[in-house]
Amino acid sequence: MNMRSILYILGWILRLEAIFMLLPVATALIYAEAEGLAFGAVMLICAALGGILAGKKPQNPSFYAREGFVATAFSWVVMSVMGCLPFMLTGEIPHFVDALFETVSGFTTTGASILTDVEALSHCSMIWRCFTHWIGGMGVLVFLLAVLPMVGGTNMQLMKAESPGPSVGKLVPKVRFTAQMLYRLYVVLTVLQIVLMLLGGMGLFESLCIAFGTAGTGGFATRNSGAAEYTPYLQWVITIFMIAFGVNFNVYYMVFLRKFRQALRCEEMRWYLAIIAAATLLIFVNIYDQSLTAENNLRNAAFQVASIITTTGYASVNFDLWPEFSRAILVLLMFIGACAGSTGGGLKVSRIVMAGKSMLSTLGSYLHPRAVRRIRFEGKDVEDGTMRAIYGYFAGAFGIFVISLLIVSLEDIDLVSTFTAVATTFNNVGPALGFAGPASNFSGFSALSKSVMIFDMLAGRLEVFPMLMLLYPPLWKESIIEMRRRRRRGVR
Amino acid sequence: MNMRSILYILGWILRLEAIFMLLPVATALIYAEAEGLAFGAVMLICAALGGILAGKKPQNPSFYAREGFVATAFSWVVMSVMGCLPFMLTGEIPHFVDALFETVSGFTTTGASILTDVEALSHCSMIWRCFTHWIGGMGVLVFLLAVLPMVGGTNMQLMKAESPGPSVGKLVPKVRFTAQMLYRLYVVLTVLQIVLMLLGGMGLFESLCIAFGTAGTGGFATRNSGAAEYTPYLQWVITIFMIAFGVNFNVYYMVFLRKFRQALRCEEMRWYLAIIAAATLLIFVNIYDQSLTAENNLRNAAFQVASIITTTGYASVNFDLWPEFSRAILVLLMFIGACAGSTGGGLKVSRIVMAGKSMLSTLGSYLHPRAVRRIRFEGKDVEDGTMRAIYGYFAGAFGIFVISLLIVSLEDIDLVSTFTAVATTFNNVGPALGFAGPASNFSGFSALSKSVMIFDMLAGRLEVFPMLMLLYPPLWKESIIEMRRRRRRGVR
Repeated sequence: MNMRSILYILGWILRLEAIFMLLPVATALIYAEAEGLAFGAVMLICAALGGILAGKKPQNPSFYAREGFVATAFSWVVMSVMGCLPFMLTGEIPHFVDALFETVSGFTTTGASILTDVEALSHCSMIWRCFTHWIGGMGVLVFLLAVLPMVGGTNMQLMKAESPGPSVGKLVPKVRFTAQMLYRLYVVLTVLQIVLMLLGGMGLFESLCIAFGTAGTGGFATRNSGAAEYTPYLQWVITIFMIAFGVNFNVYYMVFLRKFRQALRCEEMRWYLAIIAAATLLIFVNIYDQSLTAENNLRNAAFQVASIITTTGYASVNFDLWPEFSRAILVLLMFIGACAGSTGGGLKVSRIVMAGKSMLSTLGSYLHPRAVRRIRFEGKDVEDGTMRAIYGYFAGAFGIFVISLLIVSLEDIDLVSTFTAVATTFNNVGPALGFAGPASNFSGFSALSKSVMIFDMLAGRLEVFPMLMLLYPPLWKESIIEMRRRRRRGVR
Repeated sequence: MNMRSILYILGWILRLEAIFMLLPVATALIYAEAEGLAFGAVMLICAALGGILAGKKPQNPSFYAREGFVATAFSWVVMSVMGCLPFMLTGEIPHFVDALFETVSGFTTTGASILTDVEALSHCSMIWRCFTHWIGGMGVLVFLLAVLPMVGGTNMQLMKAESPGPSVGKLVPKVRFTAQMLYRLYVVLTVLQIVLMLLGGMGLFESLCIAFGTAGTGGFATRNSGAAEYTPYLQWVITIFMIAFGVNFNVYYMVFLRKFRQALRCEEMRWYLAIIAAATLLIFVNIYDQSLTAENNLRNAAFQVASIITTTGYASVNFDLWPEFSRAILVLLMFIGACAGSTGGGLKVSRIVMAGKSMLSTLGSYLHPRAVRRIRFEGKDVEDGTMRAIYGYFAGAFGIFVISLLIVSLEDIDLVSTFTAVATTFNNVGPALGFAGPASNFSGFSALSKSVMIFDMLAGRLEVFPMLMLLYPPLWKESIIEMRRRRRRGVR
């Protein structure tokens, strides 16, 4: 394995993180907060470490899928470990596992929190916490690709490993251009949301925090009451932008290229919007409360559906108190997730649709055994390799889910809480049901359970395989053999 | 579609059911029970209807997969509807949905009951209830094939649609011989268990009932306390036979042919036994109760693990009171199920193992993108078509599961009860957790929920696709077109 190139990338990630930390440092200066010193110190450490690791460009240009996976997994781990240090230094989250949980929850855009009192945070910590959502949403490696010209194969492999969903990697051959494009669209949409929220009377600081959380489909709230106190206008704005950030960014790219018809024809988006409409309608009927207006009932249903399917995780009401039918729908939405190529998590709408089509294709093959059956998606035949990868992904996802469930169930909390806590972290949603429901938090879990969920959040955000690759013995066996061989040859 | 052949098969199924009903009629004569009249009456109806439908052999020999699926699905529905009539006529289960639920639960070897007081049943109803397990376990169409020479392609298609699991259909080309072989092994094992239980001091009537339930991996108990009152010896006998009936019958066939080494090499059996050993050990440690002997703790763990993974469903303790870790393991075992080609239900060990291997293969393909990857199972390469069918099956199973869950959750019972009730009926296990736990029953669910679970039990037992085929519009559209065309030609 090409460790030099991986370390070089890690160095750049650290440099970037130092730059990102300018935001909390500036916030601390504005609000004259002493906590800013912690951010300043960590910023310097990141810059220094980054300078050492990324000082010299690596000579060896070989960079394959395995390097891409390992670099991605390590990038996210390193970024999270450094990102959690300020919380520990300021004493706002004193324990390492807690601080790491909160930071991983931020970068992976999960939004599950161990804080019991969010409002007690300093402004600089608050904005860093929300900013991690924004950074993690579009992917920090995508950002790296946007700003940094890399060697040959590096680009594609990094892009493939980090992008959410099965389709975005093939989008445009010019990776750097795509990465810049994605971030440009991302910034435009975020700014648009900030402006609309400012117009609704929200303060600038809170607008920034909430927009970061919406754009990244993260869900860290700035108030202990979540989004419950916002005006109907603000709740609708958040609802619409949550849905917008869950759409495949291909669609916006097409709109940008003025290919409106092609944008509207996106099959995944249609399924995604149909699921949202159906779930909202069913929940609206199920939770209908005569003492509220119809608009209020609809808003509550739509807000929660948008929040859960996009895996954002804001809550405007305590949906843990809803009837079982609505709760069951929300649990299903957790797994379905948003579109591929969006900032949302979950299994992704495209994968679910393709699995459903493969079921129909099996059924059809029993009806006409000799007919050649092809699964079509987005107007194209789905290749066998794609279907295999999707199913390999499902098997990996369920494997991780099951093992996590067993470990967390050792705590002997009720099964619904355990099940939904694992589901919500793995799918990067945020709130669970029961023990860690929208009106509660994750602080009550043991360090072991939190560690499992940290792994799950990363595995979910990076689409299972990069994290599994780190635990895949053949990778390390081969790497050690390779290293020995090189050392014997005297090549270093 | 060749409706004549399908009706002919249904006729034979009814004739067989009439013959099977001789057992409860004889029991009623021995115990001088008036309830026997109900069985006698329904027996005559079955024989008469069967005589009409199967009176003349159909001329049209065309019989394809679709005919096989439809014939199988209808056979099980017809058999269940007729089989539930005696319960209604005797007044022991007066409502149709309840009686049908109990009978479908019997034939599909689920063992979920709506009865609050099992011991109040007459002897003839009790033995019919348990006998349905035995009939359904190996499959009534397999029985039909064993006794009746059929036209050309009919055999294979029927066998394929009813046999549990992906592999048994290809076992032996001579279908009739295989069917006879399977039933011979089935009878021998059942008799062996009866003898061992008689030696343990159990009465003949109860031995028959319990052996029927064990052999079919059904789980209807003869006592309200389930298997809790039996002696340790009897509990161990039942445990061992539950495990034995969950093994792929290929293995016994190999033993019968004296190919012992080949029998031991069965990969699915090894995984199955390994999972049982691991689950038993984990639960043993988790539930360890100092006030009981080690043997008693081990017996409790082993009995419940064997009962759930084989989808039998007997209970020797109320495992609903166990810690969450053990409960979570049991829920997982519900889904894993027994081996393909056994009488057990669930997703089947072989499917789970192959899905796991496909995950590793995906991981490996990222490590070596250009290497050709083949999934190997039972020492052979798994064909792409097989993997596709397995994944189509998973998608269908989860689709049915999710829709069922949503409908049943409308009752607003807690999510664990709803989830496990659907899981236990779909996987043909029997007891759920919570509301319909081992110390309770399914009588509290609404008629709608019971109807959904009736469908789920049938879909689970028939491996999803035959039941889905009945709801597959293209099948009926084509059949109607075909019918019209034939009528136009004057052919009938």
